[in-house]
Amino acid sequence: MIYSNTEFYYAIPDQIDDSNIILINEEAKHLHQVMRRTVGDIVYVTDGMGHIYESIISLISKSNVILKIQSKQTQNNKLQHIPFCIPILKSSDRFEFALEKCGELGITNFIIYSAKKSYKRGVKLERWEKILIAAMKQSLQSFKPNITFMDKLTFSKSGNTLNIIFDQLAEKSFSDILTDNEKSKNINFIFGPEGGLTQNEIVSFDNSKLLKLTDNRLRAETAVISAASLLSTISVKK
Amino acid sequence: MIYSNTEFYYAIPDQIDDSNIILINEEAKHLHQVMRRTVGDIVYVTDGMGHIYESIISLISKSNVILKIQSKQTQNNKLQHIPFCIPILKSSDRFEFALEKCGELGITNFIIYSAKKSYKRGVKLERWEKILIAAMKQSLQSFKPNITFMDKLTFSKSGNTLNIIFDQLAEKSFSDILTDNEKSKNINFIFGPEGGLTQNEIVSFDNSKLLKLTDNRLRAETAVISAASLLSTISVKK
Repeated sequence: MIYSNTEFYYAIPDQIDDSNIILINEEAKHLHQVMRRTVGDIVYVTDGMGHIYESIISLISKSNVILKIQSKQTQNNKLQHIPFCIPILKSSDRFEFALEKCGELGITNFIIYSAKKSYKRGVKLERWEKILIAAMKQSLQSFKPNITFMDKLTFSKSGNTLNIIFDQLAEKSFSDILTDNEKSKNINFIFGPEGGLTQNEIVSFDNSKLLKLTDNRLRAETAVISAASLLSTISVKK
Repeated sequence: MIYSNTEFYYAIPDQIDDSNIILINEEAKHLHQVMRRTVGDIVYVTDGMGHIYESIISLISKSNVILKIQSKQTQNNKLQHIPFCIPILKSSDRFEFALEKCGELGITNFIIYSAKKSYKRGVKLERWEKILIAAMKQSLQSFKPNITFMDKLTFSKSGNTLNIIFDQLAEKSFSDILTDNEKSKNINFIFGPEGGLTQNEIVSFDNSKLLKLTDNRLRAETAVISAASLLSTISVKK
């Protein structure tokens, strides 16, 4: 089922039992104060774990909303095995815009890191998670993105993981590499900061490939959004 | 030649003769006050018509900069036949961000229009052109984007033009349609506003196809950026 012309609400699994869902705080307010939903309306709730509940509003109180579950659908997380490793950028607007776009496009796994040439600024995991949850709901998806921070980007060695580093001067392009075979591996997508990754950083990743997205020099956040667009389109349902 | 690690300057063809280029106003200031370039430095200038001039700074005065041309390269505009028809969006930040990303990704032909459900706001062609010229230079490209406004999106009939309308509920996906055969046609890429295109608007376009980009519901500006990313990657040099 493809959802459209509706809105999603988010409830953590603890707020959901076999027959009812309870919405609290912002979600409850959004439902009745912003969307003006009333008792008897059908709405959709996701638990952020791949489930979507069609449910009917049975009670609206001052502090929460009770919904009766009608049916439940389970989705697949198609891009779970592709973490996006994004450095902290100079402009937090551009950085947050890129996060939001990735969220909409179905990226659910984020490692934010501080690159050698990253502009040093605050790590706002809570704020970033909020942006990603909003993007999940907005785009009618059901996987709460997972976001972590690493001061230095390092991975434990694993034969089954490929590191793809995006670099404008790479000789191979994205479309050369994303064969079906490689889609099944774990793939880290590694993006550089405004000034690029250093040679030391590049060689620090095992089993890595340098790829370019386009011939144009892209801003850091544009490369991130572009790669997310490509993955999202490749993984479209046939 | 793929440019990198440099900056581009922009001069209209009138400022360029067979042997010299004159930079004026903002471009001249940027060269010596921001980039701290000095006489003897090699810099790159584009005329926005597909030419890139490698040139050497011969004189810096208070009001302008004279450059001596060393060599000239001509580029192809790969996406000229694909105008992006973008409605005015509710958020001008999001709208301008999408324009900038399209510019970086190599889209050079823009028709901004007022859709039935467009939020009515000012038409700022001059400001938008400035954003696109900055994106052209930033991404080291040589085609000044062409941007026009239409109050109602209409095209003269032409057998050789295909109108692609992006719609989340379309059955066909982007990758189904972009065969080599269709890449050679003129193709209008038509995007809707936040509330979507109306049925009347959709049927008003001859020879049109509805396509979806991804399964997720995308914000208006995300669909625009996503389509630009795909075209940019498809057209990458082999």
